[in-house]
Amino acid sequence: MNKNRLIALVVLTASLISGTGCSPAVRVDRDILFQASTIGALMKGIYEGQMTVGELRPYGDFGLGTFEALDGEMVEIDGKFYQVRLDGTVYAVPDSLKIPFAAVTFFDNDKAVNFDKQVDLNGLQAYIDTLLPGVNLFYAVRIDGKFSYMKTRSVPMQVKPYPPLTDAVKDQQVLEFKDVEGTMVGFRCPPYIEGVNVPGYHFHFLDKDRKQGGHVLECTTSGVIIVVDKTAGMLMALPDTPGFNKLNLGRGEPEGLKQVEQGK
Amino acid sequence: MNKNRLIALVVLTASLISGTGCSPAVRVDRDILFQASTIGALMKGIYEGQMTVGELRPYGDFGLGTFEALDGEMVEIDGKFYQVRLDGTVYAVPDSLKIPFAAVTFFDNDKAVNFDKQVDLNGLQAYIDTLLPGVNLFYAVRIDGKFSYMKTRSVPMQVKPYPPLTDAVKDQQVLEFKDVEGTMVGFRCPPYIEGVNVPGYHFHFLDKDRKQGGHVLECTTSGVIIVVDKTAGMLMALPDTPGFNKLNLGRGEPEGLKQVEQGK
Repeated sequence: MNKNRLIALVVLTASLISGTGCSPAVRVDRDILFQASTIGALMKGIYEGQMTVGELRPYGDFGLGTFEALDGEMVEIDGKFYQVRLDGTVYAVPDSLKIPFAAVTFFDNDKAVNFDKQVDLNGLQAYIDTLLPGVNLFYAVRIDGKFSYMKTRSVPMQVKPYPPLTDAVKDQQVLEFKDVEGTMVGFRCPPYIEGVNVPGYHFHFLDKDRKQGGHVLECTTSGVIIVVDKTAGMLMALPDTPGFNKLNLGRGEPEGLKQVEQGK
Repeated sequence: MNKNRLIALVVLTASLISGTGCSPAVRVDRDILFQASTIGALMKGIYEGQMTVGELRPYGDFGLGTFEALDGEMVEIDGKFYQVRLDGTVYAVPDSLKIPFAAVTFFDNDKAVNFDKQVDLNGLQAYIDTLLPGVNLFYAVRIDGKFSYMKTRSVPMQVKPYPPLTDAVKDQQVLEFKDVEGTMVGFRCPPYIEGVNVPGYHFHFLDKDRKQGGHVLECTTSGVIIVVDKTAGMLMALPDTPGFNKLNLGRGEPEGLKQVEQGK
């Protein structure tokens, strides 16, 4: 936590979860990870938007997620939302667009390091781990700079009845970049959060011009700045809908999640 | 959710997690389950208090937990905190007492039913399930009335180095009541919350005079009123301490937790 941070409190009075009459009014500070719905519900095909981008905005200026009907990868950087659709190109996002799953926070620079080594995604994650006091809190991670290689994917818009995420990603499109500049946006969530969010690291990427990107499958760094934001609070808004309430969620699906996250 | 509920917003500016310089300022409405730390950390023996009762108070008027050094079972009813120490007797709780783990909310009557049948704890839980739209949200449950049988336990204060909870509960003391009036205070948490909180039901009990009680191991109802409060939001404050950060928490310990919760 950056003790010199601007404590910009945001008072929310808008309905968090549309259509349910549920209006949690929450005042969040900068060190709370807010998440809409659960990764477990997304895995089961709950792609109906639960809140709009406009409703999500007061919870953070940095984050990732997806859109109504799984229509692409969502990235938020510096308070601006981007939609990376199937072909990897970026679209502007109207505040009315709905979100079935997202995680956002207000990003603070708690620790920043210049990292000049050439490492792959595993090496990068292992290095970031050495910057953290442990893996049991939430961490937002922003990486700006050059990548000699970047491999991203995006997902195709689905039609009802929605298939589970493991099926939906079978039609993903993969994009490969060489010598690209840009920004990786992501989180490290604790291992016990299985079923709620993605344990470990989860990154989305946008190039410097914010024209192309997607969910990060692989990369090689080539001179980046890594900034970490430690986040000890977590606020979750669940969708109180028949579709969600009737899901058989169990404890989570670690194997299916790995397949979805790694795009294999 | 009770749509006619009084939306009593509480603005928190006090430090949530003492000693860390971390001051999440959160404005919570009545439909958020607030929890301090995780059940996984408690299982591993993190019994150091993370916040005081006074700091917990603005997050809810109803809940359960334990105290610094595992010194008894915590119950909050109607905004009043009770400490059930090892012998099952109840003590008043100063606001300065510390809490390593707790879950609280502002309790609203979303659904109330008179339930006259004689059922055991399993039967009671199965009946409450029929009142709910599903098991994927959080539910606070308050049960007032007569019990022909009630079996509770409390736990002994521990000394450092703290043992894991499975060891600590080996010295629990069990109390049995016949034909007792009182209040069961509890939550139903979703299955995917393993490692974060207790999946399924978790009840503490106080008798009508608030003199005796503990963690509920078994009961037989004999004319009770069951009130359910649906809660779609969850706010978690993690302890940013070396002890917590360095724990090997993994995904949770379902078998150990069952043993602890059921007192076997």
